[in-house]
Amino acid sequence: MARPQTQPARGMRDFLPEDVRRREYVIGVIADVYRRYGFEPLETPAVENIETLMGKYGEEGDRLIFKILKRGEEGRQTGLTDLALRYDLTVPLARVVAEYRGALPRVFKRYQVQPVWRADRPQKGRFREFYQCDVDIVGSRSPIVETELCAAVSDVLERLGFEDFTIRLNDRRVLTGLLDAAGLPADQHGTALVAIDKLDKIGIAGVREDLQGRGVAEGIAARLVAVFAHPAEVGASGIAPARAWHDLLAAWTEGTLAAAGLGGTLGPASAEAQAARESLESILALSRETSAARHMQLDLSLARGLSYYTGAIMEISVPDLAGSLGGGGRYDGLIGMFLGEQIPACGFSLGLERILVVMSERQMFPPALTSVSADVLMTIWSAERAADAIALATSLRRAGVRVDVYPDADKLGKQFKYASSRHIPFVAVVGDDEAARGEVTIKDLNTGEQRTVARADAVTLLKDDRR
Amino acid sequence: MARPQTQPARGMRDFLPEDVRRREYVIGVIADVYRRYGFEPLETPAVENIETLMGKYGEEGDRLIFKILKRGEEGRQTGLTDLALRYDLTVPLARVVAEYRGALPRVFKRYQVQPVWRADRPQKGRFREFYQCDVDIVGSRSPIVETELCAAVSDVLERLGFEDFTIRLNDRRVLTGLLDAAGLPADQHGTALVAIDKLDKIGIAGVREDLQGRGVAEGIAARLVAVFAHPAEVGASGIAPARAWHDLLAAWTEGTLAAAGLGGTLGPASAEAQAARESLESILALSRETSAARHMQLDLSLARGLSYYTGAIMEISVPDLAGSLGGGGRYDGLIGMFLGEQIPACGFSLGLERILVVMSERQMFPPALTSVSADVLMTIWSAERAADAIALATSLRRAGVRVDVYPDADKLGKQFKYASSRHIPFVAVVGDDEAARGEVTIKDLNTGEQRTVARADAVTLLKDDRR
Repeated sequence: MARPQTQPARGMRDFLPEDVRRREYVIGVIADVYRRYGFEPLETPAVENIETLMGKYGEEGDRLIFKILKRGEEGRQTGLTDLALRYDLTVPLARVVAEYRGALPRVFKRYQVQPVWRADRPQKGRFREFYQCDVDIVGSRSPIVETELCAAVSDVLERLGFEDFTIRLNDRRVLTGLLDAAGLPADQHGTALVAIDKLDKIGIAGVREDLQGRGVAEGIAARLVAVFAHPAEVGASGIAPARAWHDLLAAWTEGTLAAAGLGGTLGPASAEAQAARESLESILALSRETSAARHMQLDLSLARGLSYYTGAIMEISVPDLAGSLGGGGRYDGLIGMFLGEQIPACGFSLGLERILVVMSERQMFPPALTSVSADVLMTIWSAERAADAIALATSLRRAGVRVDVYPDADKLGKQFKYASSRHIPFVAVVGDDEAARGEVTIKDLNTGEQRTVARADAVTLLKDDRR
Repeated sequence: MARPQTQPARGMRDFLPEDVRRREYVIGVIADVYRRYGFEPLETPAVENIETLMGKYGEEGDRLIFKILKRGEEGRQTGLTDLALRYDLTVPLARVVAEYRGALPRVFKRYQVQPVWRADRPQKGRFREFYQCDVDIVGSRSPIVETELCAAVSDVLERLGFEDFTIRLNDRRVLTGLLDAAGLPADQHGTALVAIDKLDKIGIAGVREDLQGRGVAEGIAARLVAVFAHPAEVGASGIAPARAWHDLLAAWTEGTLAAAGLGGTLGPASAEAQAARESLESILALSRETSAARHMQLDLSLARGLSYYTGAIMEISVPDLAGSLGGGGRYDGLIGMFLGEQIPACGFSLGLERILVVMSERQMFPPALTSVSADVLMTIWSAERAADAIALATSLRRAGVRVDVYPDADKLGKQFKYASSRHIPFVAVVGDDEAARGEVTIKDLNTGEQRTVARADAVTLLKDDRR
């Protein structure tokens, strides 16, 4: 018989103990910080009714959803699917808010750390099962919401040891306003945003080409490129790009574009864009009082992929990483798709896998996370002495010591080797002599030193040595 | 437009914050105890290749596996499935041991707490997505393995506050030996075990009827009933059933059945049954030195459903619960199905949902788990004072206080009401007067008492009051 396949399914991963410890450490920090901000935990099922998910993520998203066959004869014969695997944590949140509206507080602040599944082609750093760490505030349109979210996310990253991240901030209404003011027809907004979103990857010339390839008229493409290139050009003269974006937004909304060297490029700013500017400025001003102070950066070229955003959008970059560590934004229309009534909401999603990749590369994990699986290995001298060994293990565990018990009366050398291989620092031996005298011999595998003590003193010895 | 369905999928559940806190508490205790026994965490994907799962759980199991449609045109047209949702945590463990054998310690002790999915008909207390908490030791045939597992599980339950649970213990080889010795043909063993497994539900007369309904010859059914009724009959005369099971096992394996009043009922015990008796007695003797001491009970009528068990089997009962809190056993053949080479293994699985049900009914959760979502609500006096409020929230959070910030400058009464509804004990107000003097007013919502203090003193006030 051929040996059966034992690898995990394509694009999925097994997490051995050391992996799990690292993941649990990061998730622990995230949950701890979010709780400190008053967020509460939520969990939803991995499996949703298929109609809950379809049509929420765009055409590409629909294609990447894992679909579950109907049970019984019907499924086998027709190939009908009625359920699907969770694709993100935002749509389930919207469903939950619609379902339990009456039981939830007026402002619902939740965090959720769970896996999602996407049938993407697997590649380096992209998996078909991965964790999202989401934090959302439902029920308010105030810029305090975005401020709190950016602060919480900054606190998480700083607690994990990140120093050099940037939270890029923009507003969908500003983007839409800029495209309108450049004369782009509304039906080309979506495709233009995809091109603009690539600015940091393909540069300004690339974006211009891409825009024209997508059917954007030459004159409009030129105007857009002038706008999106402006901060880089101004930046070349020594002004930071964030400041340049800020000045551009001010000049446009105040009608002083000519003075900024962009006269004739853009039409006037819409009332929506004016409101968005105020909101962005509030978020930036309030963020000065939070952990996000050093990290926030206005960036009018930030677009974000998902179609459901309606206001502020955010994305986190670190220098060495091509993609982002996370992102989010305001989606005031999504819950209404489930509830009828419109309920404003805004959220941030951190990508656990990306964070782990960067932390591994930069060796940012605390040394205590290495694979010490127990404080002491209780060896088995002989079948007759097994009960003594187990009795001592029981009393050590009751005192809080982590004790691994070796299961077989193998040669002591083999048992010691097993302890070393598991990075267990001490071994305990209750041989016939020790048993007769109520003692135990404890050996430090790092120094080779060994001491025989009364069993009652073993706890003290092991606890002292653990410090 | 009809309002879309917003309930979770059939048999699945959303966990609101209070539910999650209870689940996290129980999972935390389980993980903490298992780590104290030297077990290490493992996680496997929710999705497995379909051939990894099929044929491992029996016909009924195969039918209950959720199957995932192949992606793309092929899946849509043919209804072909290539992936499936995890059905338990034991088969994935066996796959992992086969795949990573070289990287794992000779004795691999792992715990795993993850959801599994079964397309069962949902009913009270039975769900289609539920958590299993598994603990297994791979790589040894020693009875120390079973002892350690029973001790760890007992410690978990005692730490959660259970006092009155019983770990029933049996061995598949004893059961098989008893059926053989009663003259039952091997091909009727499976169906007879299903009948015997119902002893506590339908009583001895019920089992007799059930056996005959399943085609067991009348004489053999009578002999089996005499054996399985014996402890109850002896029990009626004042001897505890566990003792009676023990005496029966001894009499049978020592050939003194006649003296025990069962002469002629059973043929001689097989060598396998002799070995099983020794193993059971070792487990019971060693367990006297552990946390399981008061809980272990020999019960030769315990059968367990899964077909892969080969030796000891265990099940946990508590008085008010019809089903069990968990169970397990030795499966020395399962890993060999993936690896070729036989590797012995034994494990225990706790049912999280059952534990939660009993703990809720008996009100066993610590009071601190109630829904206090933050230590203080920072109110927003006005849009102009928002930055002061956020600055104070930032410094309180840095000092470890959990601060919720209200997002809107609503009337204070409304903000206070929100704090009460979330069980937040204090509210903080930075109004125009407080801002001018660098102060904050903090109100205790339980006593109504309020104090205005320098902002630097707010931490002390809130931390003191938290005690």
